[in-house]
Amino acid sequence: MSDQETTVGELKQLVENFVSARQWQQFHTPKNLSMAIAIEASELMDLFKWYDSEESNALMDDIDVRHAATEELADVLILCLAFANRNDIDIDEAVRAKVTKNHQKYPVEKFKGRF
Amino acid sequence: MSDQETTVGELKQLVENFVSARQWQQFHTPKNLSMAIAIEASELMDLFKWYDSEESNALMDDIDVRHAATEELADVLILCLAFANRNDIDIDEAVRAKVTKNHQKYPVEKFKGRF
Amino acid sequence: MSDQETTVGELKQLVENFVSARQWQQFHTPKNLSMAIAIEASELMDLFKWYDSEESNALMDDIDVRHAATEELADVLILCLAFANRNDIDIDEAVRAKVTKNHQKYPVEKFKGRF
Amino acid sequence: MSDQETTVGELKQLVENFVSARQWQQFHTPKNLSMAIAIEASELMDLFKWYDSEESNALMDDIDVRHAATEELADVLILCLAFANRNDIDIDEAVRAKVTKNHQKYPVEKFKGRF
Repeated sequence: MSDQETTVGELKQLVENFVSARQWQQFHTPKNLSMAIAIEASELMDLFKWYDSEESNALMDDIDVRHAATEELADVLILCLAFANRNDIDIDEAVRAKVTKNHQKYPVEKFKGRF
Repeated sequence: MSDQETTVGELKQLVENFVSARQWQQFHTPKNLSMAIAIEASELMDLFKWYDSEESNALMDDIDVRHAATEELADVLILCLAFANRNDIDIDEAVRAKVTKNHQKYPVEKFKGRF
Repeated sequence: MSDQETTVGELKQLVENFVSARQWQQFHTPKNLSMAIAIEASELMDLFKWYDSEESNALMDDIDVRHAATEELADVLILCLAFANRNDIDIDEAVRAKVTKNHQKYPVEKFKGRF
Repeated sequence: MSDQETTVGELKQLVENFVSARQWQQFHTPKNLSMAIAIEASELMDLFKWYDSEESNALMDDIDVRHAATEELADVLILCLAFANRNDIDIDEAVRAKVTKNHQKYPVEKFKGRF
């Protein structure tokens, strides 16, 4: 998997190049990007809307659903990268800080196998 | 910025460790995770709901809003990483494929400064 | 049930009185209200996020979940009524037109028991 | 406006007839319907995503945008009516209770012109 080698910074740059070539920074306000992220997340949900949770696992074996889900996930991620770019957010730092906080909020002994 | 050095794979592993320590893989179906991503995206939006797009830029200079937005963005990303983990999606590949597709959908000459 | 007697117009007026008393019309642009509707819809989802579809039926027998779901549904509806108020949309007409369109899109013989 | 005459109950019945003719009650669990409501709300947002709040007001003068927005609003409402139908929720009662609660949460003297 190329995720083993690609840095977050490389993906941020890829998105930044795409955005700046189109001079889209002007549209990429926090408000607009947060809407765009939510909309793409909603399109990902749409694939699984009427299926049970278990069925949604099986659906991912369907090559077309899998392709569509991968594209929608990519859309969410691209817009998150754009949000981080415009607002100078270090994703690595943000994710590590939140996971650390979640470790305290959800101690293993209390939340093993439950939520 | 540590994003220059951290690989996507390292963040995936960080999230996987958190999830598997709690045996939460059972809850992480595509359907459930897509809902969770959408919900966190919505919490990011909630910060900017009643502000104009321009005001939302200024809001990010407020240290509390900035902190809250960074946490919500991290929540979206953590769940996207969890989705990729459960479904064997290479994020680097998915993002690159979607950006390439977007290059064709939004040619620079036609979309410069417009959407 | 009072829904048998209350007109849609009465609920619209109730919401309009609440909004205008606070001079909130200025914030109720289509963009802002669409975000607010999506955010409340997301809070409704949040109640059922980690449960299976069947379990979500049972959850509605829990008085606290039922109360929370009823409040979140009301929030979505109140904001939809506000959207209709600001944009002179007749809800009865809009709903009937869409149901009629759906009758053509989803003919009974083809969609009975399936989607 | 026909909203002056149509009761909420009549719209609920209209939706119930549509749903039961297709035997779709089985898919209309609280979880699934909450997702469907959020997805339609997201489609409403999508119309205004890249526009400023003020521009979104002007957009509603465009007959095509207005038509699309009216349809998406109707979709949200239809699914809310379906949610109320499946879970025996009196919409009139739910909306009134929530508006009353909001009166206490947002006293006029404190929230006039602000949020």
